[in-house]
Amino acid sequence: METIIKYPPQSTWESILQRPTQSVEAIESIVNEVFLAVKQNGDTAVAQYTKRFDKVNLESVFVSHEEIETASDAISEDLKLAIQQAKSNIEVFHSAQKTAKVDVETQPGVRCWQQKRPIETVGLYIPGGTAPLFSTVLMLAVPATIAGCNNIVLCTPPNSEGVIANEILYTAALCGIKTIIKVGGIQAIAGLTFGTSSIPKVSKIFGPGNQYVTVAKQLATKFGVAIDMPAGPSELLVMADKTANPAFVASDLLSQAEHGIDSQVILVSTDENMLLETENQIRIQTQNLDRKPIIEKALENKKLILVKSDQDAVDLINYYGPEHYIICTDNNPFFIENVINAGSVFIGAYTPESAGDYASGTNHTLPTNGYAKAYSGVNLDSFLKNITFQEITKEGLETIGTTIELMAEAEGLMAHKNAVTIRLKSIVDESK
Amino acid sequence: METIIKYPPQSTWESILQRPTQSVEAIESIVNEVFLAVKQNGDTAVAQYTKRFDKVNLESVFVSHEEIETASDAISEDLKLAIQQAKSNIEVFHSAQKTAKVDVETQPGVRCWQQKRPIETVGLYIPGGTAPLFSTVLMLAVPATIAGCNNIVLCTPPNSEGVIANEILYTAALCGIKTIIKVGGIQAIAGLTFGTSSIPKVSKIFGPGNQYVTVAKQLATKFGVAIDMPAGPSELLVMADKTANPAFVASDLLSQAEHGIDSQVILVSTDENMLLETENQIRIQTQNLDRKPIIEKALENKKLILVKSDQDAVDLINYYGPEHYIICTDNNPFFIENVINAGSVFIGAYTPESAGDYASGTNHTLPTNGYAKAYSGVNLDSFLKNITFQEITKEGLETIGTTIELMAEAEGLMAHKNAVTIRLKSIVDESK
Repeated sequence: METIIKYPPQSTWESILQRPTQSVEAIESIVNEVFLAVKQNGDTAVAQYTKRFDKVNLESVFVSHEEIETASDAISEDLKLAIQQAKSNIEVFHSAQKTAKVDVETQPGVRCWQQKRPIETVGLYIPGGTAPLFSTVLMLAVPATIAGCNNIVLCTPPNSEGVIANEILYTAALCGIKTIIKVGGIQAIAGLTFGTSSIPKVSKIFGPGNQYVTVAKQLATKFGVAIDMPAGPSELLVMADKTANPAFVASDLLSQAEHGIDSQVILVSTDENMLLETENQIRIQTQNLDRKPIIEKALENKKLILVKSDQDAVDLINYYGPEHYIICTDNNPFFIENVINAGSVFIGAYTPESAGDYASGTNHTLPTNGYAKAYSGVNLDSFLKNITFQEITKEGLETIGTTIELMAEAEGLMAHKNAVTIRLKSIVDESK
Repeated sequence: METIIKYPPQSTWESILQRPTQSVEAIESIVNEVFLAVKQNGDTAVAQYTKRFDKVNLESVFVSHEEIETASDAISEDLKLAIQQAKSNIEVFHSAQKTAKVDVETQPGVRCWQQKRPIETVGLYIPGGTAPLFSTVLMLAVPATIAGCNNIVLCTPPNSEGVIANEILYTAALCGIKTIIKVGGIQAIAGLTFGTSSIPKVSKIFGPGNQYVTVAKQLATKFGVAIDMPAGPSELLVMADKTANPAFVASDLLSQAEHGIDSQVILVSTDENMLLETENQIRIQTQNLDRKPIIEKALENKKLILVKSDQDAVDLINYYGPEHYIICTDNNPFFIENVINAGSVFIGAYTPESAGDYASGTNHTLPTNGYAKAYSGVNLDSFLKNITFQEITKEGLETIGTTIELMAEAEGLMAHKNAVTIRLKSIVDESK
């Protein structure tokens, strides 16, 4: 069985590195329906769709103080300490991302500055489903809090008993989130977009979700709401040369594969033996994993790619723009230096992707689907916006005024010119 | 005639401050048509739509070296110097926005860092039409160049003689843009989205445009291309107390009004007399302006709002989130301190909006339509993306490993846990 792709020429990269495509046509009609209903009927519509999709009638969509206390009691001390350590590291790294005001005099009397302000109202979407993704609560709530967002609204779907996972409630409360709403799926995104009596209208929506949530977030942008980034299936590319440990590499590829059957795993190497040994390790380790059926399905699309040189590897990797990118070579500085397109980069034998997924401090909300070519992962700036300020003195305007007048006139905008002329004239009149 | 809105209660803000709405339904079908055609037929389709919309058959869509030289010769030395001064100020302010690498050890042996990389390929869209908006060339090309974008593609529509305005060509060449393409409108955005033989596929599209271009940019995001920000009609809000100069204030409101009949101008004051005097000044100054018909139409929707206090003013202004915001009061520091939602802020009597539109150094590509609540205007970061990196030592993994294992297990992701376990085990085995 020959699964290794050897020395692929650049003309074949597009087809080799093609991502799993998603057909959203079918989803769009139900997303449009829910948006229209929630816009018109608010909470009533939200409750109807919660009943239909989540199979539950809720008395209240708000999580009570009692529910949070019960949840906290149900979690082991060990797990609490783990969550607290992860939170602390995420705080350290995201706090370090604060920037100073940029303040310059571009020419005498012309002062321009740039200062960040928090986005006042943000919505954090946390998926429900089989696994409670409380780590995503940390990844969104921690930077939102550091940024100083005033109103942080967390939406997450209830199970059919109307309950949210203990870990999500504990983590949200630990992060100081006051508004936790039991609404998920399209109706949550619609509620955050239009606002209802229970769900505040927000300016920006963050967080992962299934295809319905993804399409709903895309639609939300049509109604003036910003989103963190468009989403696609998760992906990992590992660059490993002959010095890498095939068992470690295999364990990382498997951790990516367990996310879902559409997860994409790619291994690039300058050493054919490394590819073969890793493939063997994948086979061995898969046997003991709970999510074997998902993993085996995802692995059907794995790519093992042999390249001639580190430079060829770098070119191919930047062409792909992986969400997660592990570098295990004896030439790591070269690969770090030449990363152009990637979401998050993991370096060396003892830096598994899991570290960044949970606890090292970096964010795990990252650009998939090649979006790393234009988008950053979620970071402190995702919760801030830059405002520019300027203040010009009389003397400053006297120096720069003619430039503005000439340019405005050349653009045919005489009222723009006049706003300068009338001021310059007044300065001259005053000095008479 | 009573045009002043006195002390509006917060419940009325939504209707008072409503922005002109745009119906895009009709536009969407032609945008979809052009996208499909350009995707399928590339340059052939682009040429067909250029013929249909711009009424011209081009021999080549590329601007030649000769055309640039001819354009440069046709521009007055005065205007050249003005453009150069503006460019210099824009360079100073946008260069000052460079940030250092963020590099921290979140706990011993766990190093996380964040570093920016340029977006490799960007498209700059410059509108054509009656006025040649060469200032927008500066606002996009200068930060793209400072960011280090490798491939900068400028698209702008030709006139019916197949010609681009001299000022646009001169400015683009001055900024070092190598690829100037004579394609405008929907077909330009479609070309940049899919790529054609002539037009490179880009990762992000920047720039203003009419409703067709705006809807086309929105559609481009569905095909994996990022855009600078969604767009709406331009707007200005001036806060002026009794110490402001009504003639200056009027000149600024008029410079906003001349942009188009859907431009929005709002004047907020704590002083009724200031509102009345400014209204009078608007009447007087309008008489001498070239674009009187546009201005008068836009002014039909102007709002003059009287508020009780500076705090009321600030609340109303942040509720609106103006694109351009001029502050002319004797309490400017209070207003600066309390700005939460605005694109660009102009402070004091000698800082007209025109200064920032052209030459002071700030960018004029700004969030309209209330998008200032979530979006920044174009700045250096718009052309960069943040990549996170992490490197963990053996000792680091020994410290953080249990945390990752516990969290992965609680999320039901055992392969994530195993990626740590297999490494910790190997460290123990080694030390035996």
